[in-house]
Amino acid sequence: MDDADWTQSRARLPRPVVTLLTDFGLSDPFVGVMKGVALGECPTATFVDITHDIEPQGLRAAAFWLGQAYAWFPAGTVHLAVVDPGVGTARRAIVACAGGHCFVAPDNGLLEVVRRREPALRARVIDSAKLGLPVPSRTFHGRDLFAPVAGRLAAGTVPFDDVGPEIELGDSALVPEPRRGERTAEGQVVVADRFGNLVTNLDGLPASALATATVRVLGRTVRVVGTYGDLARGECGAVVGSFGQLEVVVREGSAARDLGAKPGTPVLVDW
Amino acid sequence: MDDADWTQSRARLPRPVVTLLTDFGLSDPFVGVMKGVALGECPTATFVDITHDIEPQGLRAAAFWLGQAYAWFPAGTVHLAVVDPGVGTARRAIVACAGGHCFVAPDNGLLEVVRRREPALRARVIDSAKLGLPVPSRTFHGRDLFAPVAGRLAAGTVPFDDVGPEIELGDSALVPEPRRGERTAEGQVVVADRFGNLVTNLDGLPASALATATVRVLGRTVRVVGTYGDLARGECGAVVGSFGQLEVVVREGSAARDLGAKPGTPVLVDW
Amino acid sequence: MDDADWTQSRARLPRPVVTLLTDFGLSDPFVGVMKGVALGECPTATFVDITHDIEPQGLRAAAFWLGQAYAWFPAGTVHLAVVDPGVGTARRAIVACAGGHCFVAPDNGLLEVVRRREPALRARVIDSAKLGLPVPSRTFHGRDLFAPVAGRLAAGTVPFDDVGPEIELGDSALVPEPRRGERTAEGQVVVADRFGNLVTNLDGLPASALATATVRVLGRTVRVVGTYGDLARGECGAVVGSFGQLEVVVREGSAARDLGAKPGTPVLVDW
Repeated sequence: MDDADWTQSRARLPRPVVTLLTDFGLSDPFVGVMKGVALGECPTATFVDITHDIEPQGLRAAAFWLGQAYAWFPAGTVHLAVVDPGVGTARRAIVACAGGHCFVAPDNGLLEVVRRREPALRARVIDSAKLGLPVPSRTFHGRDLFAPVAGRLAAGTVPFDDVGPEIELGDSALVPEPRRGERTAEGQVVVADRFGNLVTNLDGLPASALATATVRVLGRTVRVVGTYGDLARGECGAVVGSFGQLEVVVREGSAARDLGAKPGTPVLVDW
Repeated sequence: MDDADWTQSRARLPRPVVTLLTDFGLSDPFVGVMKGVALGECPTATFVDITHDIEPQGLRAAAFWLGQAYAWFPAGTVHLAVVDPGVGTARRAIVACAGGHCFVAPDNGLLEVVRRREPALRARVIDSAKLGLPVPSRTFHGRDLFAPVAGRLAAGTVPFDDVGPEIELGDSALVPEPRRGERTAEGQVVVADRFGNLVTNLDGLPASALATATVRVLGRTVRVVGTYGDLARGECGAVVGSFGQLEVVVREGSAARDLGAKPGTPVLVDW
Repeated sequence: MDDADWTQSRARLPRPVVTLLTDFGLSDPFVGVMKGVALGECPTATFVDITHDIEPQGLRAAAFWLGQAYAWFPAGTVHLAVVDPGVGTARRAIVACAGGHCFVAPDNGLLEVVRRREPALRARVIDSAKLGLPVPSRTFHGRDLFAPVAGRLAAGTVPFDDVGPEIELGDSALVPEPRRGERTAEGQVVVADRFGNLVTNLDGLPASALATATVRVLGRTVRVVGTYGDLARGECGAVVGSFGQLEVVVREGSAARDLGAKPGTPVLVDW
């Protein structure tokens, strides 16, 4: 049972680990006070920020990055993910476990990619009253609900089974899957990273294909290479990026800027 | 005695906690080297950043955010706050304790809101010579004075009473209090957060009033709602924000941008 | 032997300390997943970010800042530094030790200033196969090679001697030294910090000279002062900055903006 995986792994960690992913930015104290509250419940926690620079309400990018990042952390980690445009409305607040990892988040699609990778994901809705949590503010459930629950889970003071009733996660369609043909795949740009690399949803391309593959985006055709150094300075190409997704890149430049591509821009691969 | 509260709470923490708030940004190594120095004095410290994105010399925003954030951390925490336009001039460097919390900061108004919330705040000026600290650089007391003192306090190697002579904090008027009438209050914008929400100094509004209250700012009149979801997309309104202050917001937009409001802009509430 | 200094110091630290310096920014999960991987190898590590805001491929600024920052951390610290334009090409991946500090980085000049300050620096190339590390991705050696090696070094599970064969570091000329005369020195701007202060490579100026020294940059002549408060608001001058380098500054302004100076701009001091 996947929550048993997480439960046992958590107990074996020398120190609890809590990751954070939000759209709060780092300019205001929101992330800091979430950590303060989590420390109150779990005084020995180590915090690692995945990112807080998701654009406001950017559920697509958040779901994508959480899905790429979580498995690089030790089994037993608690992932506190709060991108929550529906705060204060009827959306559910949940805890979900799979593959040795535990997620505390709103049920709004944020776990869509995690769920795709962990079909055995099990979720429970947070029963605040049962957990003795005070009524949260209307606007900052990250601090008032998600952070203390993450802290208690990380500390082991609340077992997954005591969080609340088991539920099925809601459906979402934030991060589409590519359409795959025999020697072709059609996907799209999901996010641009800090370097302007266009990260697509095109994963799982056969290695044998990559040597001859071409990529079409916004009227351009570029070749697939092994790494940035295989391109000339300023040349546009495609690489299999570090998370296994095809990326459109410009060596020592910015593909996002040069191509004017954005999340949703179609990208086609043929080989 | 409030420093006894902090002293006892600190001793009970499984691990020392040190928060940091500065205007140094995260692009340069200034914050990192402060943590390095604090680790030298307190090798088991957990650090939590409150924010480092205060605009340079932004004492008003810094005093406001420190005052909102500190109490969300466990009792026993040491708060290292350095927004220090007067570095190298005659301003005093101090340690202050109240309510289970300890603050290491310049005496320049940075603790103004903390002091308003903790009337029993007691302060001591840092006696560097007595503490055996080397002469600090002229420009980086965060690293040379405040960080090592914060580290020693967090580690328990220097008790509050040994920091230096007790003093009265200087007066400051960075974060004004609202003017309150029978069914009205007049305040101002203090800061804009990352989302463009205009956070005001209007706190403590009676809950019964909020259902009928209207808010006037820059010629506009908006209603007070419970949360963002109660507004239409793009609609401007006011909410009681997560720190108890009235905020002028635009749902899935930016009130700061749409209204052109800035810190100091007057905001009136009637009910 | 300098690696013995580091080895012994590491063993004496109550908790392992790992610093990070990259050009990855904090908007994407790259830094977070490096920490996740390092935690997998060293579950009790404390992480401190030096900076992740080096401009992409900014080896000069990275080498400069790493050289200024490392020694402020406790002896025994592991510094994980990844600015790696040559990722996936023939550049070597190394571990180097000196002065109680251990560095895990590409051999591309990133350690140039460290090496200048620590002439006894010894380096070994990372033997991935010997260490049992899986084949890394082509584009993210920070996560696949440098982070796990840093984690193992910090945990003490791999001694420096077992990293791989000893080598001489390659030559580089990223951060030039000033030209020094009897009563003059000619240097250049290396980086601009967040405040717009122009940090130069002019260090080691005699204290007695500073009272009468003048500084010439881009056609302007300014005086050297003790600290910002010695200048009028908006006045341009020079100070010995917190890392011992001469800096051209504007009190409560930005010298970078006001002067239009950039990295490489010549700066002359006469006294």
